[in-house]
Amino acid sequence: MFGNMDDDSATGVAMTRNGSTGERQLEGDYLTNAQGEDVVAGIRMTKDLSELKKEMPDLYAEFERIALLLEKHYREMQDMEFTIEKGKLWMLQTRDGKRTAQAAVRIAVEMADEGLIDRQTAVRRVKPEHVDFFLHPQFDPAALAGGKLLARGLNVSPGGAVGQVAFDANMAEAWAKNEGKAVIMVRPETKPDDVHGMLAAEGILTSRGGRTSHAALVARQFGKPAVVGASAITIDLTNREMTIGERTIHEGEWISIDGTAGVVYEGQLATMVPDIKDPWLIKLLDWADSFRTLGVWANADYPRDARRAVEYGAQGIGLCRSEHMFFETDRLPYFQKMIMADYPVERREALAALLPFQREDFAGLFRVMDGRPVIIRLIDPPLHEFLPDLVELVAELADLKIQLKHAPDMAAIDALLSDIRQKEQLRKRALSLREANPMLGLRGVRLGIYIPELTSMQVRAIFEAACMVVKEGIDVHPEVMIPLTSHVNELIRQRTVLEGEARTVMAEQGVTIGYKFGTMIELPRAALTADRIAEHAEFFSFGTNDLTQTTFGISRDDAEAGFLIEYMEGGILPANPFATLDRDGVGQLIDMAVRKGRASKPDLECGICGEHGGDPQSIALCHQLGLTYVSCSPFRVPIARLAAAHAALQETGRPHDE
Amino acid sequence: MFGNMDDDSATGVAMTRNGSTGERQLEGDYLTNAQGEDVVAGIRMTKDLSELKKEMPDLYAEFERIALLLEKHYREMQDMEFTIEKGKLWMLQTRDGKRTAQAAVRIAVEMADEGLIDRQTAVRRVKPEHVDFFLHPQFDPAALAGGKLLARGLNVSPGGAVGQVAFDANMAEAWAKNEGKAVIMVRPETKPDDVHGMLAAEGILTSRGGRTSHAALVARQFGKPAVVGASAITIDLTNREMTIGERTIHEGEWISIDGTAGVVYEGQLATMVPDIKDPWLIKLLDWADSFRTLGVWANADYPRDARRAVEYGAQGIGLCRSEHMFFETDRLPYFQKMIMADYPVERREALAALLPFQREDFAGLFRVMDGRPVIIRLIDPPLHEFLPDLVELVAELADLKIQLKHAPDMAAIDALLSDIRQKEQLRKRALSLREANPMLGLRGVRLGIYIPELTSMQVRAIFEAACMVVKEGIDVHPEVMIPLTSHVNELIRQRTVLEGEARTVMAEQGVTIGYKFGTMIELPRAALTADRIAEHAEFFSFGTNDLTQTTFGISRDDAEAGFLIEYMEGGILPANPFATLDRDGVGQLIDMAVRKGRASKPDLECGICGEHGGDPQSIALCHQLGLTYVSCSPFRVPIARLAAAHAALQETGRPHDE
Repeated sequence: MFGNMDDDSATGVAMTRNGSTGERQLEGDYLTNAQGEDVVAGIRMTKDLSELKKEMPDLYAEFERIALLLEKHYREMQDMEFTIEKGKLWMLQTRDGKRTAQAAVRIAVEMADEGLIDRQTAVRRVKPEHVDFFLHPQFDPAALAGGKLLARGLNVSPGGAVGQVAFDANMAEAWAKNEGKAVIMVRPETKPDDVHGMLAAEGILTSRGGRTSHAALVARQFGKPAVVGASAITIDLTNREMTIGERTIHEGEWISIDGTAGVVYEGQLATMVPDIKDPWLIKLLDWADSFRTLGVWANADYPRDARRAVEYGAQGIGLCRSEHMFFETDRLPYFQKMIMADYPVERREALAALLPFQREDFAGLFRVMDGRPVIIRLIDPPLHEFLPDLVELVAELADLKIQLKHAPDMAAIDALLSDIRQKEQLRKRALSLREANPMLGLRGVRLGIYIPELTSMQVRAIFEAACMVVKEGIDVHPEVMIPLTSHVNELIRQRTVLEGEARTVMAEQGVTIGYKFGTMIELPRAALTADRIAEHAEFFSFGTNDLTQTTFGISRDDAEAGFLIEYMEGGILPANPFATLDRDGVGQLIDMAVRKGRASKPDLECGICGEHGGDPQSIALCHQLGLTYVSCSPFRVPIARLAAAHAALQETGRPHDE
Repeated sequence: MFGNMDDDSATGVAMTRNGSTGERQLEGDYLTNAQGEDVVAGIRMTKDLSELKKEMPDLYAEFERIALLLEKHYREMQDMEFTIEKGKLWMLQTRDGKRTAQAAVRIAVEMADEGLIDRQTAVRRVKPEHVDFFLHPQFDPAALAGGKLLARGLNVSPGGAVGQVAFDANMAEAWAKNEGKAVIMVRPETKPDDVHGMLAAEGILTSRGGRTSHAALVARQFGKPAVVGASAITIDLTNREMTIGERTIHEGEWISIDGTAGVVYEGQLATMVPDIKDPWLIKLLDWADSFRTLGVWANADYPRDARRAVEYGAQGIGLCRSEHMFFETDRLPYFQKMIMADYPVERREALAALLPFQREDFAGLFRVMDGRPVIIRLIDPPLHEFLPDLVELVAELADLKIQLKHAPDMAAIDALLSDIRQKEQLRKRALSLREANPMLGLRGVRLGIYIPELTSMQVRAIFEAACMVVKEGIDVHPEVMIPLTSHVNELIRQRTVLEGEARTVMAEQGVTIGYKFGTMIELPRAALTADRIAEHAEFFSFGTNDLTQTTFGISRDDAEAGFLIEYMEGGILPANPFATLDRDGVGQLIDMAVRKGRASKPDLECGICGEHGGDPQSIALCHQLGLTYVSCSPFRVPIARLAAAHAALQETGRPHDE
């Protein structure tokens, strides 16, 4: 076939639906009297397919009929090449068309609405990454169209980022932290030493490396947009500049990187957050909800998080970290007072001051979650986290003492002495609370046993808040969760104290609240003895972060910026076990715990509340293990809803669906 | 019956064997013309039973005949009361006699030799605490007899201790640490704040508290002799003195406490280490060896430990901590140089300097263990353990800088500047190596993967040493052990590197060494995936200390002086899981690992090398779980041999034995 025989000949490409928006309309380009290469090469200005309708209406009608037929046959949007030779249409090739995330969602939904595919297939065709797109800042398509492209590389970590070029980690960190600049860190490649700069940067760009390079792994891990292996860029670290062809970019100039597409642009492109209220996405996620059996809850500490969670479709709160409120500036002084207290009466006073804050926090959550369960985890972190760092205190004290030598007058001396005294007290307490391995120290339920007044205050706040909102007409379902249980006796001990407090409050208020009492399963021993533990818990919530830390014997904070990256680069671990649940180890423990727990208590509610709850692969595992729900960040709820549906469809899947 | 009718009447008590030494001879006291109370009350001077033989030879002969009959009937040493009324002998009571540990061993052995009991029964009758007696300092019986008793209390932690009285923990610590004094810490009762003083003291004495009091638990935990609840003592903390009746002891005076018996004496009593070469003990342990199926190995880092281990009956070395040598003063500088190295060449030089030391260390062990297996664990602890403490460095640097201001001359300034520079470098490196939770950080196999040259050097040292001693005619069985494996890929990776090095050395030396390559199982994930791991390991050694830490999520260093004591006092945990293996949790993991491991490799050698290896209850569990051996401190080897026999006899035990 020759499209370049005469003016009745033509050649072109077309798609059955719009690849950007997903709209159902034939779209394409063609050239009359030309060969296929000419269209692709972009030498001649192509014509829009709508012109063909005018130039050759019969042929266009025939093409349209065939296009629809092809789409119907393949039940997918088609990307076709055609040639017209002397007034005769030849279809050269057809294949599934490429599309954006937005288009993927709309096409899947509309095809199902049109009856081309069933809803299960529509749900399956949309990938979690597609939904992810709706949740991350992206470049405005108009800005992208007008953007000046600098280079292309690998799209290793999605999202758009704009910042000033910094050529090393220290510069990136200094600019970002001290000067509040937005920075893109640019390096030939990155090493473990560079992690602090990568964390401080908005995005990462390298000229070398592939999808499993250090830069790619770190960027994905920390959700930083990144383009790697942009080999057209030559970086000159001595002169602090990079060149792409003729163009030279100096340190401090602005660039924009599109981690979703793997493209680098000059200057500052406008970004936008795509709309989660996209009508096709809403419809698709509704279908997903009808297929999934796994609940999707969210982790939320504040009413604003809870509102977002509900808006995104969460069915409950799987984790409210009750201590997060203690870090706020109006509460931290009371909490520190509680820690520093020498006498019980001081401690009680400090706790009494905290109670109204906690009560209001919980009441706010209950109001938003009206009718839905809210799991509140009692205080978890070790106490020293609420005090200043010991090494810094020692350095500050040395400083203050030197200042003392040079104090100009008595008032200055008095002020310094008072400051020193106070810091000295903090130092002593911080020293006494110092632990070799705080992750494995005095925290979680151990704190509740150590300072029962503290968890009693928290339980009082939960039940006072619940009684209060019940009187407002709110339907409240609190679930009290004990963290870090390793032995059933810990649970028995705390339950006695806390249920006593709950009963007291309900009696005081004359209100009865339906509540559950349960525990986190986040230590191997708890999973191994889950049958005993389930006798004293109405629910389990797997804290997969700590469970992964203890099962692997890896401190996440230390490892993720350290050897874990080398482990992934070197292929020792297939994935970061803190991002994707380790099926063989941690998964085995969860499986064991669910079985043993339900053997003791068949209706035991089992969920997970680690970050894994928002990871599609981990969600699939949770479905297979028979969990009741996953709980994740509100932003991940839509992804979790889809992933849970995929997991359910996978199981019941009819092979001809896909 | 009346023993006070006339001079042909008498009353007395007697034992069929000597309760102190165990010697087979009738011993006792009697009074003519007296009632039983008179003998016990000690009002009248009693006569030795040998007198009776002269006074009433016929009656004595009859008594002797009956005594032997009773012993034969009960197959146990008898403690009898008798009365003679007008020349007629009446036996009033007989029961099993009390005896010292030494006597218990001798009596059991001799009764078996006499055919009264079988050897199984003899072994069973001796308890691990009896053997323990032979291994701890005790008071010289002569000294005890002459000692001036001050008070009695509960014997909660065995052994004899002598020291100067200190009435609080700070005083105890200051005297012990700064002045090198031997201290007995005396308190009404102890609290967690007192632990540092208890650790510094030779022994602990309290006037209040019972067998599960804080003082008792801490003392047992740290092996400190202790007497608690000595209620006759009144402690006056204000005047720094204690009174017992009329006697007042001031702070700083000497006392001696017998934790084995629960007695407090005035002044300094002479102590002695009982003889492990006691012929009856040797015989008994030989019998124990013939019954047990569990091997008993020892943990030893140096030839002197290995010699003791062999002497005490160890069948191999289950754990040589290869890094312990790096802490020695002649090696630490090289090791620090290795850590501080900026360039590979510096690192290699530092490692090359360490190689001859390591080779000599291992050669020494191999020579002692001739013919027995020696498991050498490659470097385990995180690198920062080899550098000074960061908080101390910061404080020292502040100090040096202040000194700089007052330096008298240029030489002093230069010296200070050089010191500051060096400490500053250490501070930087220590800071970069700082980890939030070092127990779960860059250590074990992770170090081997991070610095392969380091473990290669160690393997070279092992094989060069092995080749060297083979040429001396020694039979050498090295086993190379990788610590902290969590994923089989770690093992595969290290094995490739290390076996390569081993082959190189053997080729260089022209010697072939039969060796094993294996791993510790000390993380839950390793136990859970033991089937995969066993495909690449010839042996497993359970590191039950770390396995307990990660299974419970408890950092031992932090917990044992902290909440763990409260947990035991409050009955939350039945025992300290770091002293006695936790059957339900950690035991379940070991069981799983042994089964899975042997499913992959039926002849897999499985042992434990934690401190639990010397604890009788834990040894019984190890036997039940089918382990090949336990490895413990050389001092615990005799106890382990007995406990392993008890475990085997328990299993095959015929009920009529006891």
